[in-house]
Amino acid sequence: MINEGLLRRQNILKQLNSLQADACLLSSTVNLYYLNNKIYKGYCYLPYQGEPVHFVRRPLDLKAEDIGFLTDEPGQQGPRLHPDQTHFHLIRKAEQIPEILKELGLAPAQKLMLEGDELSFAEWTRLQECFPDSRLINGSQALRKARSVKTPYEQSLIRKSAELHVASYRSIPQLFRPGMTDLELSIELEYVMRRNGNLGLFRTYGADMDIFMGSVLTGDNASASSPYDFALGGAGHRSNPIGANGSQILPGQSVMIDMAGNFTGYLDDITRCYSCGKLTEKAYKAHRVALELQDRLQERLKEGEVCEDLYHYSLDFVASQGLADCFMGKRQQARFVGHGVGLVINELPVLAPKMKEVLEAGMVLALEPKFVIEGIGAVGIENTFIVGKKHGEKISLLEEEIIDLTSL
Amino acid sequence: MINEGLLRRQNILKQLNSLQADACLLSSTVNLYYLNNKIYKGYCYLPYQGEPVHFVRRPLDLKAEDIGFLTDEPGQQGPRLHPDQTHFHLIRKAEQIPEILKELGLAPAQKLMLEGDELSFAEWTRLQECFPDSRLINGSQALRKARSVKTPYEQSLIRKSAELHVASYRSIPQLFRPGMTDLELSIELEYVMRRNGNLGLFRTYGADMDIFMGSVLTGDNASASSPYDFALGGAGHRSNPIGANGSQILPGQSVMIDMAGNFTGYLDDITRCYSCGKLTEKAYKAHRVALELQDRLQERLKEGEVCEDLYHYSLDFVASQGLADCFMGKRQQARFVGHGVGLVINELPVLAPKMKEVLEAGMVLALEPKFVIEGIGAVGIENTFIVGKKHGEKISLLEEEIIDLTSL
Repeated sequence: MINEGLLRRQNILKQLNSLQADACLLSSTVNLYYLNNKIYKGYCYLPYQGEPVHFVRRPLDLKAEDIGFLTDEPGQQGPRLHPDQTHFHLIRKAEQIPEILKELGLAPAQKLMLEGDELSFAEWTRLQECFPDSRLINGSQALRKARSVKTPYEQSLIRKSAELHVASYRSIPQLFRPGMTDLELSIELEYVMRRNGNLGLFRTYGADMDIFMGSVLTGDNASASSPYDFALGGAGHRSNPIGANGSQILPGQSVMIDMAGNFTGYLDDITRCYSCGKLTEKAYKAHRVALELQDRLQERLKEGEVCEDLYHYSLDFVASQGLADCFMGKRQQARFVGHGVGLVINELPVLAPKMKEVLEAGMVLALEPKFVIEGIGAVGIENTFIVGKKHGEKISLLEEEIIDLTSL
Repeated sequence: MINEGLLRRQNILKQLNSLQADACLLSSTVNLYYLNNKIYKGYCYLPYQGEPVHFVRRPLDLKAEDIGFLTDEPGQQGPRLHPDQTHFHLIRKAEQIPEILKELGLAPAQKLMLEGDELSFAEWTRLQECFPDSRLINGSQALRKARSVKTPYEQSLIRKSAELHVASYRSIPQLFRPGMTDLELSIELEYVMRRNGNLGLFRTYGADMDIFMGSVLTGDNASASSPYDFALGGAGHRSNPIGANGSQILPGQSVMIDMAGNFTGYLDDITRCYSCGKLTEKAYKAHRVALELQDRLQERLKEGEVCEDLYHYSLDFVASQGLADCFMGKRQQARFVGHGVGLVINELPVLAPKMKEVLEAGMVLALEPKFVIEGIGAVGIENTFIVGKKHGEKISLLEEEIIDLTSL
């Protein structure tokens, strides 16, 4: 039996080892929460050997015993683990860190891993001045890798999110009223999701991925390009160009619903497609191709598969079906077919070109083969899967055919 | 008559001038939107003399004419302004920028302003390699200053947000049902706000300010400290420790509602306080002190006042009323009493210690004197004001007394 916190710590230490770093200094909300089950404003110094040291700026009344994983939560095993007082320090500024480490007898790290993708230039520079003798390296990708294989407890949280997400989507046909807009349908679904426990917050990795709770696309808005790195676009609002834009849902158009499932702090991802009346044969065919591709990819969500191989396999498959030109967009095509999910919507691994990463059991991915059909909208599917030894396990089980919202 | 885009450009050029920088390279969503009325993934190079040059990575089908302010929008005057083709370039990577600038005959900037608080260390380093002969400076604060005095059009957008925000808050008494939790009341109000046009997105400046649409605090959850830099805390969810935590709204407790008003892309900020039955005399007194302080500060929201003076004035006033120990929190006290609003919730200026900034007409601030009363919850007020020549103008007009939700 092993404590959840120790499991996660080991995932990070493995990355430290592969980069031959002596320590890392975590500072982002997501990574502090991952390691410590607690979000504070400050820094967590994790040496390759020894206990993590917590440097807390806020909350001012945080206690050492607030940090760590409890034994009485589901999935938690082993002794409760929280820092002793010597490893817990309230500080006002980062400049206090080196002196405290010295008092603890910790030699300055020769190679220190920071979150270079998350820290601003100003913050990094300040930390370099705190550690003048350390060689700083950017560990953001390594930390994403550390988080990519989920512990059993993390998997249980994503399963729980998927379960509540599915329960929410079941009500979609009842939410539809003829004549409503994409935005109106989105608002009704957001309300249902919030009442079912969705926390609302949609965390992403990387800047400039502003989005509210998810996206609802109908008609030609599905082909509007976005500056953001999501699978499909949508014009949204001028101040936030993604997703629904107030288009009325018209007969003959599809409605694609892709909301994030943050019901537990861990996100799952599910997309379902609906129609307002009948769609064209091309739209139904593309949808069937998406389902077929999903099934084929699920078979390959197993240890040892290489991410880019699955992406190229997908491209080949949709090309063989004559649908390459509208795969993952029309005017702008997203170059991935699946992505990790967890504390953020875009975890590693990503099924995309040049991604040499090898799948491992326990990784959790969303597969989202989608097509944009001009004049109709988007069709396709998205589900969340756990990578297994022999194939992926789908954890978001819900009717996958296009449901005609007017036939109910 | 002057085009909105030119007005905003002048605000930035003024900052370039004061820092003696030759150019700035904008890259964040917020600043690109501010200058160009368009969000793209890429860079906008604004020289001190000459036209801005747009380097667009996505959307792939963006056109020069999509950028800029239209003459037919309310508040827009003068000629429509968008870049000509020589100032609009689709690029794949930042490394293409210097060559294009050279082709345009633009000499390399000796001093180049970047967004050092927003760019990651990795991005900054990459840009430094693109501009090896330029001295890079962090212009994030200068750009916040540029945005702090709002144009008449920006003011009209904040007024519109405040108007729809007020209309939404009017329904709060009808949303309450005895026995409901803070979270349930929040969800009902979120739904009303979304239906009234709230865009949902809650933009902040700075990392680690994760929040959903706002916060609803009741009882002792109002004194729970948060790691984030908001006025008050609330335990929230472990994965996002801010605001409502599922506490039942009990007789004798207050309910403080502080949602962000993003109805136009520009945010206003309003807090109102309610009660479940009668509160203690101390709570009512503290609320009256907050209203009185708000009125006094409004008189001083005028050109020439210094931000820190207003903060210290506030501290002195609440101390004279015997309420210093619970002002802006109890276990953790926020050290500000007002903040700018606009494209993000925490614009400049901030009424806080050490803030030497002088108020100018056209700045827009939220004043939020609040108190936390143990066993009761939070009381106080928040409204949005435009700084004037003689005093502030309140733009969020709505009943300010504590409304008893059980008396309706």
